[in-house]
Amino acid sequence: MAIFSTFGLKYKTMSKLVSEFNEYRTKMNEVILSKDNLVIKRLWNLDTNTYAAGALDVKTKELLGLVASMVLRCDDCIKYHLGKAHELGLSTEEMYEVFAVANIVGGTIVIPHTRRAAEYWEELMR
Amino acid sequence: MAIFSTFGLKYKTMSKLVSEFNEYRTKMNEVILSKDNLVIKRLWNLDTNTYAAGALDVKTKELLGLVASMVLRCDDCIKYHLGKAHELGLSTEEMYEVFAVANIVGGTIVIPHTRRAAEYWEELMR
Amino acid sequence: MAIFSTFGLKYKTMSKLVSEFNEYRTKMNEVILSKDNLVIKRLWNLDTNTYAAGALDVKTKELLGLVASMVLRCDDCIKYHLGKAHELGLSTEEMYEVFAVANIVGGTIVIPHTRRAAEYWEELMR
Amino acid sequence: MAIFSTFGLKYKTMSKLVSEFNEYRTKMNEVILSKDNLVIKRLWNLDTNTYAAGALDVKTKELLGLVASMVLRCDDCIKYHLGKAHELGLSTEEMYEVFAVANIVGGTIVIPHTRRAAEYWEELMR
Amino acid sequence: MAIFSTFGLKYKTMSKLVSEFNEYRTKMNEVILSKDNLVIKRLWNLDTNTYAAGALDVKTKELLGLVASMVLRCDDCIKYHLGKAHELGLSTEEMYEVFAVANIVGGTIVIPHTRRAAEYWEELMR
Amino acid sequence: MAIFSTFGLKYKTMSKLVSEFNEYRTKMNEVILSKDNLVIKRLWNLDTNTYAAGALDVKTKELLGLVASMVLRCDDCIKYHLGKAHELGLSTEEMYEVFAVANIVGGTIVIPHTRRAAEYWEELMR
Repeated sequence: MAIFSTFGLKYKTMSKLVSEFNEYRTKMNEVILSKDNLVIKRLWNLDTNTYAAGALDVKTKELLGLVASMVLRCDDCIKYHLGKAHELGLSTEEMYEVFAVANIVGGTIVIPHTRRAAEYWEELMR
Repeated sequence: MAIFSTFGLKYKTMSKLVSEFNEYRTKMNEVILSKDNLVIKRLWNLDTNTYAAGALDVKTKELLGLVASMVLRCDDCIKYHLGKAHELGLSTEEMYEVFAVANIVGGTIVIPHTRRAAEYWEELMR
Repeated sequence: MAIFSTFGLKYKTMSKLVSEFNEYRTKMNEVILSKDNLVIKRLWNLDTNTYAAGALDVKTKELLGLVASMVLRCDDCIKYHLGKAHELGLSTEEMYEVFAVANIVGGTIVIPHTRRAAEYWEELMR
Repeated sequence: MAIFSTFGLKYKTMSKLVSEFNEYRTKMNEVILSKDNLVIKRLWNLDTNTYAAGALDVKTKELLGLVASMVLRCDDCIKYHLGKAHELGLSTEEMYEVFAVANIVGGTIVIPHTRRAAEYWEELMR
Repeated sequence: MAIFSTFGLKYKTMSKLVSEFNEYRTKMNEVILSKDNLVIKRLWNLDTNTYAAGALDVKTKELLGLVASMVLRCDDCIKYHLGKAHELGLSTEEMYEVFAVANIVGGTIVIPHTRRAAEYWEELMR
Repeated sequence: MAIFSTFGLKYKTMSKLVSEFNEYRTKMNEVILSKDNLVIKRLWNLDTNTYAAGALDVKTKELLGLVASMVLRCDDCIKYHLGKAHELGLSTEEMYEVFAVANIVGGTIVIPHTRRAAEYWEELMR
């Protein structure tokens, strides 16, 4: 079927999505941290602590980070939390319930970000 | 002790926070729904469905609604989800971990909303 | 009926909504303009020009200003455009269709602002 | 003339803007809807209803959707409404009055989105 | 003169603006910090460090905090930075140039926040 | 060293960042201004005036424009102000203190924009 074969081919060219995101992120984090701005360094450490297990478990916290990133419409933040959610073994159905909350709370302007989130999630799940 | 007695007195005047919020909300919802705008009616129904149990449980969904409301800095939305979280028996420690995610993701501009959230939570827990 | 009589009484105390908004606005505009900041003065003049008739008529432009204010969740901006829309003779049904667009595009975080918009519109229509 | 010939060439490479936007949109909508999340499905249906003729006509509603998308700085939402506005036969002058409202209400941070909107509109008008 | 005498009287009733803001802020900070959420505590410490003298002086940093608070339309954040700017001896003219940048970058939705900022600044300067 | 040589090569492909940004900006500004929308024209003139020397000097004003652009997460606005800051001879250390304020006030959603800002600044400093 025409659409699906095109679709399949397209997916092959999309396969760099995850690695390119991670590489750019790593490279620029190095540049930024090399400047030794103490406030930025500490904020980034704190960011890591925020998602550690506490009264809430790690899965819930990642979902909180994801929905917050979606309603604030930060594509890179969304990708980061999708990557983490994937590592933690969260299901597609769970992801889409988070997407639904984000779309309802944040409105239809969240839809384009949901498209990119869905695309990235497909990539992670391949 | 001076601070705490003042504090206690203050809390008595604050004791209307929850009821006033709920009354105004109910009253204006009636006004809005009386106008029979179909899109608004359906969106509001959908809003209720969004937080129903599914792949994610009701508690997790309420926390998602809360953190989304906090980073978008919507005080009334925050109060609504705090009320729901309280009904569901969530603990103060859990609430503050949601507050922490919201403050880290959304930055220090979330702090004034965190103050009002903390105040409302104290009211709910009395 | 208990609810409606309370409601009626409430509306009497709300009757200052419009005049208080306009008075505070006028007073603070005077304070700001008295400082002679040229950029602010020119921006404010430009703001008036923006809503003048052109390729689009005045009614359409006020509705554009209203929906923009709603999705950006600026209560005072909403009140200002509701006042203008009322002067131009727009109907309640038209207003609620603008509210609907704002709620769909901007999501449920627009609801609390819709409540305050609906309250202000009731005041204007009395 | 150097600038305009370069410009003309550039426009040939830009000519895929509209089709690529529509294809990606269609493809990802299929992915998302295939997951059968009821809330997302219903919200998307509701989104279509929102812009149907009512007390306000279809043209006005599309302009409301456009200006809301601009002040919320959602490029894909802007493209979608520009496409609809073009189908409805709205003029360049009308479009730029919407752009003006968005720039005044939303400030100079709307300018980069106005550039991309203007580029897309040129493409639609070719 | 009628307007100014009313204005003067009004100012007497406004005179609690600064103290009430500071008292509520202090009280709720105590409530929040008493819950011992480590992420929140560290973020708040970091917030203090952010405005310490470095490559940029303290005055410039406070103005950065102020303009950021204005475009993000956080009234309490604005009040906090106005208080600091006042302690540092910044002039009304300097303040209004910050207001101008915020109004141009963030658009006319910043105007209502500028009114409240102007009101608070008048209070601080009395 | 593997990482740095890759990094160096990467930087060669990035070298078009600044010129491409400026060219697109110039080209689309011409398109927009050719439509003669008076409100847009005047706003853009006003934008230039906003950053002229006054009670605050030009350097401070550019930093205000930069931090406002960062917390509002407008990549193109950030690039514009980074270009200006570079022309004015501001140092990397000063830039990173602005980045730090933006990250603290606006939260971790500002991080992806900080990465792109850092990349652009490296390009300007080569």
